[in-house]
Amino acid sequence: MAEKTKEMMESWSFLDTVESNFRPLVVIELAKGTKEETIEWFTNRIVDKKANGGAQLLIKPLVTENGVENIYLVGASHLRLLLGAEAVGLVKECTDNSMRTFTYSSRKTFKHFADDNHNFLTMAECQYIIKHELENLRAKNEKMIPGYPQAKLYPGKSIVRRLLTSGVLVQIFPLHDREELKKLSHSWYGRVKVGYQPLDDIRCYFGETIALYFGFLEYFTFALIPMAVIGIPYYMFAWEDYDKYVMFATFNLLWSTVILEVWKRICAILTYRWGTLLMKRQFEEPRPGFHGVLGINPVTGREEPVYSSIKRQLRIYLVSLPFVCLCLYFSLYVMMIYFDLEQWALDYHKENESNFSNLMLFVPSIIYAIVIEIMNRIYRYAAEFLTSWENHRLESSYQNHLILKVLVFNFLNCFASLFYIAFVLFDMKLLRQSLATLLITSQILNQFAESLLPYWLQKRYNRKMKKRMCSKKTDADLSLAEQVNMEKEMGTYLGTFDDYLELFLQFGYVSLFSCVYPLAAVFAVLNNITEIYSDALKMCRVYKRPFAEPTANIGVWQLAFETMSVISVVTNCVLIGMSPEVDALFPDSKMDLVLTVAFVEHLLLAIKFIMAFVIPDKPRDIQMKLAKLEFESLEALKQQSIIKTGFLLHLKAQYTSVEKQQGLTFEKFERFCVQRKLVGVKEHVSL
Amino acid sequence: MAEKTKEMMESWSFLDTVESNFRPLVVIELAKGTKEETIEWFTNRIVDKKANGGAQLLIKPLVTENGVENIYLVGASHLRLLLGAEAVGLVKECTDNSMRTFTYSSRKTFKHFADDNHNFLTMAECQYIIKHELENLRAKNEKMIPGYPQAKLYPGKSIVRRLLTSGVLVQIFPLHDREELKKLSHSWYGRVKVGYQPLDDIRCYFGETIALYFGFLEYFTFALIPMAVIGIPYYMFAWEDYDKYVMFATFNLLWSTVILEVWKRICAILTYRWGTLLMKRQFEEPRPGFHGVLGINPVTGREEPVYSSIKRQLRIYLVSLPFVCLCLYFSLYVMMIYFDLEQWALDYHKENESNFSNLMLFVPSIIYAIVIEIMNRIYRYAAEFLTSWENHRLESSYQNHLILKVLVFNFLNCFASLFYIAFVLFDMKLLRQSLATLLITSQILNQFAESLLPYWLQKRYNRKMKKRMCSKKTDADLSLAEQVNMEKEMGTYLGTFDDYLELFLQFGYVSLFSCVYPLAAVFAVLNNITEIYSDALKMCRVYKRPFAEPTANIGVWQLAFETMSVISVVTNCVLIGMSPEVDALFPDSKMDLVLTVAFVEHLLLAIKFIMAFVIPDKPRDIQMKLAKLEFESLEALKQQSIIKTGFLLHLKAQYTSVEKQQGLTFEKFERFCVQRKLVGVKEHVSL
Repeated sequence: MAEKTKEMMESWSFLDTVESNFRPLVVIELAKGTKEETIEWFTNRIVDKKANGGAQLLIKPLVTENGVENIYLVGASHLRLLLGAEAVGLVKECTDNSMRTFTYSSRKTFKHFADDNHNFLTMAECQYIIKHELENLRAKNEKMIPGYPQAKLYPGKSIVRRLLTSGVLVQIFPLHDREELKKLSHSWYGRVKVGYQPLDDIRCYFGETIALYFGFLEYFTFALIPMAVIGIPYYMFAWEDYDKYVMFATFNLLWSTVILEVWKRICAILTYRWGTLLMKRQFEEPRPGFHGVLGINPVTGREEPVYSSIKRQLRIYLVSLPFVCLCLYFSLYVMMIYFDLEQWALDYHKENESNFSNLMLFVPSIIYAIVIEIMNRIYRYAAEFLTSWENHRLESSYQNHLILKVLVFNFLNCFASLFYIAFVLFDMKLLRQSLATLLITSQILNQFAESLLPYWLQKRYNRKMKKRMCSKKTDADLSLAEQVNMEKEMGTYLGTFDDYLELFLQFGYVSLFSCVYPLAAVFAVLNNITEIYSDALKMCRVYKRPFAEPTANIGVWQLAFETMSVISVVTNCVLIGMSPEVDALFPDSKMDLVLTVAFVEHLLLAIKFIMAFVIPDKPRDIQMKLAKLEFESLEALKQQSIIKTGFLLHLKAQYTSVEKQQGLTFEKFERFCVQRKLVGVKEHVSL
Repeated sequence: MAEKTKEMMESWSFLDTVESNFRPLVVIELAKGTKEETIEWFTNRIVDKKANGGAQLLIKPLVTENGVENIYLVGASHLRLLLGAEAVGLVKECTDNSMRTFTYSSRKTFKHFADDNHNFLTMAECQYIIKHELENLRAKNEKMIPGYPQAKLYPGKSIVRRLLTSGVLVQIFPLHDREELKKLSHSWYGRVKVGYQPLDDIRCYFGETIALYFGFLEYFTFALIPMAVIGIPYYMFAWEDYDKYVMFATFNLLWSTVILEVWKRICAILTYRWGTLLMKRQFEEPRPGFHGVLGINPVTGREEPVYSSIKRQLRIYLVSLPFVCLCLYFSLYVMMIYFDLEQWALDYHKENESNFSNLMLFVPSIIYAIVIEIMNRIYRYAAEFLTSWENHRLESSYQNHLILKVLVFNFLNCFASLFYIAFVLFDMKLLRQSLATLLITSQILNQFAESLLPYWLQKRYNRKMKKRMCSKKTDADLSLAEQVNMEKEMGTYLGTFDDYLELFLQFGYVSLFSCVYPLAAVFAVLNNITEIYSDALKMCRVYKRPFAEPTANIGVWQLAFETMSVISVVTNCVLIGMSPEVDALFPDSKMDLVLTVAFVEHLLLAIKFIMAFVIPDKPRDIQMKLAKLEFESLEALKQQSIIKTGFLLHLKAQYTSVEKQQGLTFEKFERFCVQRKLVGVKEHVSL
């Protein structure tokens, strides 16, 4: 084994002549006992030339004290990374402060570019490029993975994805940069301070998707502050008169529209600065779990698994949909049990009034909140299983179906009891109490389950690891091998889904019944401030570093938040209409009251839609910059067309006056002239 | 004068050697008495080479029996048109049935292409290309139009637009093709037949915008037929029981959503076939009427008139908005007068009951309908004046502001009285009667004012013209000069605005109060069938041929129709809620009734939005075709990037191993290798 390794090391040693300073960027962990032929084939493909279908990257086995452990470090030369940046369509800032798609030939026009400046691309960008290159490593004529006949391949299949699904490849993850991480965590959550998060640094380290989540979290917290500030005096001086909240609720509704629209603009500013607003969409490959019989994809013309769209539709409508409905029904059933419990606690309190029975009053709500959280989490697994079973071809379509399933269930699960209390029981006092209990309990549970628990587990594991390694070094002193071994055991961050979901539900608590419980915004603000810290901690200390993922917006969540704000107009209008004070304004006729409420509701909805329509999604200066880029590219095309037109018409004139006699067709003449550059015009372009 | 002409003819005669078969496509009419130097300068610019800033087109003066009349015919060589087609980004069908952007170098891959097939481009396309080239004829260093010092120019200003605004250029219009027109009009409206319109032929002759209007008109008529078919029995057997219309109204609401969604799909099918779905948007130049002080445009960096956006906003919000509100108020005032008149007629009928008084009952409605039409037309001029005074930079923004102004006013003007009758007077019988009168009167007025009157005027003028020319030829026998003289006097078709507006208001009559007057759909269908014929007549016989205008959809009208269908959900739900029969279902509580109606309304709106979201805007096969094109272009880029990467990394390796000693930088080495093609790799691409 050791000899083999030495041999392999030698065969890779030529790389060192190419790039002496090999910088490990990405870690590849293969399963223990992976066959030698597989390893050799895979590493060869990674190192092989682009023209041969390789990735032309650098790879080194990780040598620890225990010898080789099937862990490999992947890097790339500076030039290779620059060319990779062009391939993934990275957008960087130019010296004239405009953002442009990076190309190697125009590299001199970019800010901070120098042939010897190896920090032109951030480490996260380099890792993203390597991930992209690895994922685009495709099978040529291999029918299977060498050594694993059951792991079938077909031309064009991503090798890495097949290795992952067949279990040969355990994981691929980018390495942390201990130095950078220390700096980042210090400026992010290391000290208690009032101020913005270092979003640009977060983006450099973790990529755009995560930075955008933290940007949204911060923005959303700031946006809630006005509601919280107005909410406190309302709560202090009008605790029982929720009729006074009419003005507050109206403000709330319009405010929630404004903040969602303004977020789009802020998002455009951020992603323009980060370059992702301009990035072209890449062609989406089938997601890893997608399977089917081999066939011809009508779009790409390539051989790949094909799965009938009708079958998928049948699975969605005949299995998933009924299952979701059943779950919704079950959730409502649990809710009814909760109300029975609530009633029982109330009766108990009435019979034997004591401190204990007083406490008992809160028990059903707390139990219900815990049950909701548990049901949400179980349902989440079911939804993931079902959506994966639906066999969507694209990751985006998988994500959309999953998000839809989870959103509908979580919405009902969290808010059904509140709707029931508000619109069936008409008990505003209970509504306020339930809302408070649900909101606070779910926030506490979330903070605990999401960050503190994993952090504590990780801490304990790290201590154990260090003890085993018998070293007393601090994190910064760890050798590369120790760092890799530590990081590969860390949990994997599964994306921003749960974080956005939490914010979405919080937005629901704040806006759906804002006229009943104005303090919700206060709790939300407090929660979000700690959330920023605990999420930051989670990203930096608990999980493996995630791959950077370029993104231009928060995607489907924008739609989800907007839908919630439309629903909240309806609920708030009904709540206000039901309040005794508003009731008192229409002593003669209930009809007039209802009609007025309905009219106001439609008016508010109309205002919302008009506001959403009128407020531009991108600030004016971003619009101008985008228009400028578009203009430039159109102008370049036009210039090319003018030159070409001039050239060809000149040819035609020459042809007509001279060459026709010789029996030459214009086409032949044209080809002849282009080849020999016989034309007396300067504007010669490649045709 | 005659001598000058002869001289000019000679100077142009060299064109005939280039292209002996000059085919006149576009007519340019200059003002009588235009200075010679201006004519010479302008025609020279048109003929001049592209490289010199000319249009490189062909031009000939029109010689009639009365000598030269300052009318010029513009054409272009076949090759010039092909290159122009590439410049405007025309999309044509390939031999493999896919649609691709035409380029001269890939011309062989297109269906029906042959170097000697002069019908590859339709005449309308050729005319569009010539218009595009003429409009893009830009001033170089001229400070003014030669001979007209008051007509200022600045570098980059469109010469044709300045000539038009300064009155030197009277008009530019494309010539009719008598042969084609005869064929088209025969298959379109020449014989009474049941079947579809020849949309593809219409598109070939008049371009996409007009063909899409007729496509929409036809589609909309077909879509109304189910409503009309269901409406007739409802009307026959339940004339007085409008409570029975509940089912009908519900069907109507969902149907209107479906038809609007399906139209998007049909529109995608049509415009994909015509190539405009794939056409890239051109950069929008300032509209002709735009003025301001000369400044630097931040987007283009060119010198052009700049007008402060704040000034424009002030004009919009401080002048236009109050003016529109005033007009709306005036319209409501007129409506109140109408109701007074109505009351007076009713009183008169009661006092002296007679046939005459019975007729008198209808008089106020008819007068009101006529007044509405007149007000609409007057307001239209005011709106055009105001929007033009707002000084919008882009034609699209001008159009949007104009459409918004006109739509709001026309909506209120046409429907305010109906809303008043329905929701203030609660008089369903009067509502039905008014609706019928308004609908039928406005249809008759429209048909008359729009087609028959201009047709009759045109006919009379033509007879007069022919008499003056003392000839008894039929249309087909006319000489070119006679044809041009005839056509230049025809009216100019001002675009599809009025036609869409008419359909929009009709859609309002049909859907807003569908549960009261199901016969509206029947009248709409009948009107639209004659509308197709009269509009076709108008296009072919009454107006000058319009320039073809590529378009991918019906633009803002889709939004307008969708908004109308949302409003109609609200109105119909309220109408149904007010019906005695529904009322009888809730004998105990009015509250329950209103709440139920509100609930149903919200449900319908939710279904509408979900349906609009779920139904894809493009049919699956069009989506696939678009995806395929996108994939191909991405794949081409990727291939290029792979070749480039391989080449550069190969260079780098050579450089590292050999050249470093000689003190050559990699950059110099790279440039050297590229120039001398010293590299031993095949994959040499232009860097």
